[in-house]
Amino acid sequence: MPSAIPGPITRFADLVEEARRLGPVKVAVAAAEDEHALEAIKLATQAGLVSQAVLVGDADQIAGLAEALDLDLSPHQVVEAPDDEGAARYAANLVWRGEAAVLMKGALATASLLKPVVALERTRDSVQKPLLSHVAVFEVPTYHKLLLVTDGGMVISPTLEEKVRIIGNAREVAAVLGIAVPKVAVLAAVETVNLKMPSTVEAHELVQMAKDGRLTGVLVDGPLALDGAISAVSAAYKGIEGPVAGDSDILLVPDIELGNSLGKSLIYFAQAKMAGLVVGGVAPIVLTSRSESPEGKLTSLALAVLYAGASR
Amino acid sequence: MPSAIPGPITRFADLVEEARRLGPVKVAVAAAEDEHALEAIKLATQAGLVSQAVLVGDADQIAGLAEALDLDLSPHQVVEAPDDEGAARYAANLVWRGEAAVLMKGALATASLLKPVVALERTRDSVQKPLLSHVAVFEVPTYHKLLLVTDGGMVISPTLEEKVRIIGNAREVAAVLGIAVPKVAVLAAVETVNLKMPSTVEAHELVQMAKDGRLTGVLVDGPLALDGAISAVSAAYKGIEGPVAGDSDILLVPDIELGNSLGKSLIYFAQAKMAGLVVGGVAPIVLTSRSESPEGKLTSLALAVLYAGASR
Repeated sequence: MPSAIPGPITRFADLVEEARRLGPVKVAVAAAEDEHALEAIKLATQAGLVSQAVLVGDADQIAGLAEALDLDLSPHQVVEAPDDEGAARYAANLVWRGEAAVLMKGALATASLLKPVVALERTRDSVQKPLLSHVAVFEVPTYHKLLLVTDGGMVISPTLEEKVRIIGNAREVAAVLGIAVPKVAVLAAVETVNLKMPSTVEAHELVQMAKDGRLTGVLVDGPLALDGAISAVSAAYKGIEGPVAGDSDILLVPDIELGNSLGKSLIYFAQAKMAGLVVGGVAPIVLTSRSESPEGKLTSLALAVLYAGASR
Repeated sequence: MPSAIPGPITRFADLVEEARRLGPVKVAVAAAEDEHALEAIKLATQAGLVSQAVLVGDADQIAGLAEALDLDLSPHQVVEAPDDEGAARYAANLVWRGEAAVLMKGALATASLLKPVVALERTRDSVQKPLLSHVAVFEVPTYHKLLLVTDGGMVISPTLEEKVRIIGNAREVAAVLGIAVPKVAVLAAVETVNLKMPSTVEAHELVQMAKDGRLTGVLVDGPLALDGAISAVSAAYKGIEGPVAGDSDILLVPDIELGNSLGKSLIYFAQAKMAGLVVGGVAPIVLTSRSESPEGKLTSLALAVLYAGASR
């Protein structure tokens, strides 16, 4: 067997390979009576990423779908749950007790899945309650490495304090991709602080926090418009210096609308591939969607395996 | 000569051709001592889009740059101005009096250029003072027609009332592109109204206004996430019906950060070309930037010529 891939992971193929090398994990699926979730479990089991899935939900429907999908249920476990709420609670508890390493969404609303997760996280005995945030990882044909965008899926309009923690969550995802000190661009429409644009003021504050050690393990620059953040040519035109401009690993967006639209622009217009996780809790959460390709589902699960492996 | 291009313009080459057919216009350039503005004037004059440019600014510098760029000044007029403020005021007045059809930015800040424009517009004898907004037109290789995004350049965080007027301004740009009743997608992160996301509430309100005739000449749908707005496949997956989903002409974004980032994502990641105008005043305003290609500058001027021709 080859040893660990040297340097950061820059392609999804390597991400899946690295997750396979790390070995399979146990996954809890809430409301598993879902064609797309079961298809992902099938692929990830075949790929050596999942050792066992606990499929919580409508047992009859799960059995029927498994047959239709040609998914062998023998390594897995089916647990009957009366409704979505019960399924989410059971699956979240499995992960909370460490009996599964990854939580996965089936045929239920994201809010229903997250409700018991948030309730459990609130019982944590720590000064600071955890913040769950969404980190999307993109393989963009026109960018020279993987690009992380956060948060386009969980926190609607983060405060400055929440932005600090969203950066921290993204830093952990970057770490499992082999990016030791990720370069974070705080996105705005301009490069100068403008009191009429709060995103620029908070970008300046985040840069200060990184300078004086209140925000560690990352290189931060901002406010940056997208071109300066990801294009070395544009950064040079604009006279933006420093290590982040033109070479960002993480784009911190001001709100969920921007993160969501930017991600979809990458997928639909720039033909990018995406893997996504909700992180910040005891275990990563995979929210695969209907419109994702089988390859996308596999990559999201591989990212979850890497993340879970790193926090073991 | 062929007659007018039938149906909407879907490529920038046709846009330039149509502007050429319409005939050249007079352009006022504020602070024309700018290599990039003069290069645009040179190209647009050669292409038959500009009959005369009034180059307001530092006459010596303008003459020097014209020589370096091999720009023949004989059809044009150079007007000495003491400073940026004076140049902007002179150029804005030319356009205000109808002595030039297009206002163009040279070597001065956008805010300095717009200051006298806004002051003049405020003197207009109308119930409703005009709202200036930015409309970006993109030719995206992965989209089946031209795509307008507004407002990623002027209005920072529009109110509902301003959104109505931003749509009206974009509708006029769509009209000169031959799009009689443009399809407007009001962008958000989700497709359902969520009181925690004001963009979804206002999207719903805009749809209602279009239904009951308070917003005319457009088809409006929203809230829509980007995928449902521009991908028929995604719209079908999500069960979104109606004429807008998957076939949008205009994307109305909730704020300048999203418009700016989306536009730059199209240019830098999806290899799109852009033409942009500030509209809503007596004449279109062209803000070409240093990082734009010569072709991009020409397209923006061609769009301005079409727009000016339509309002003649």
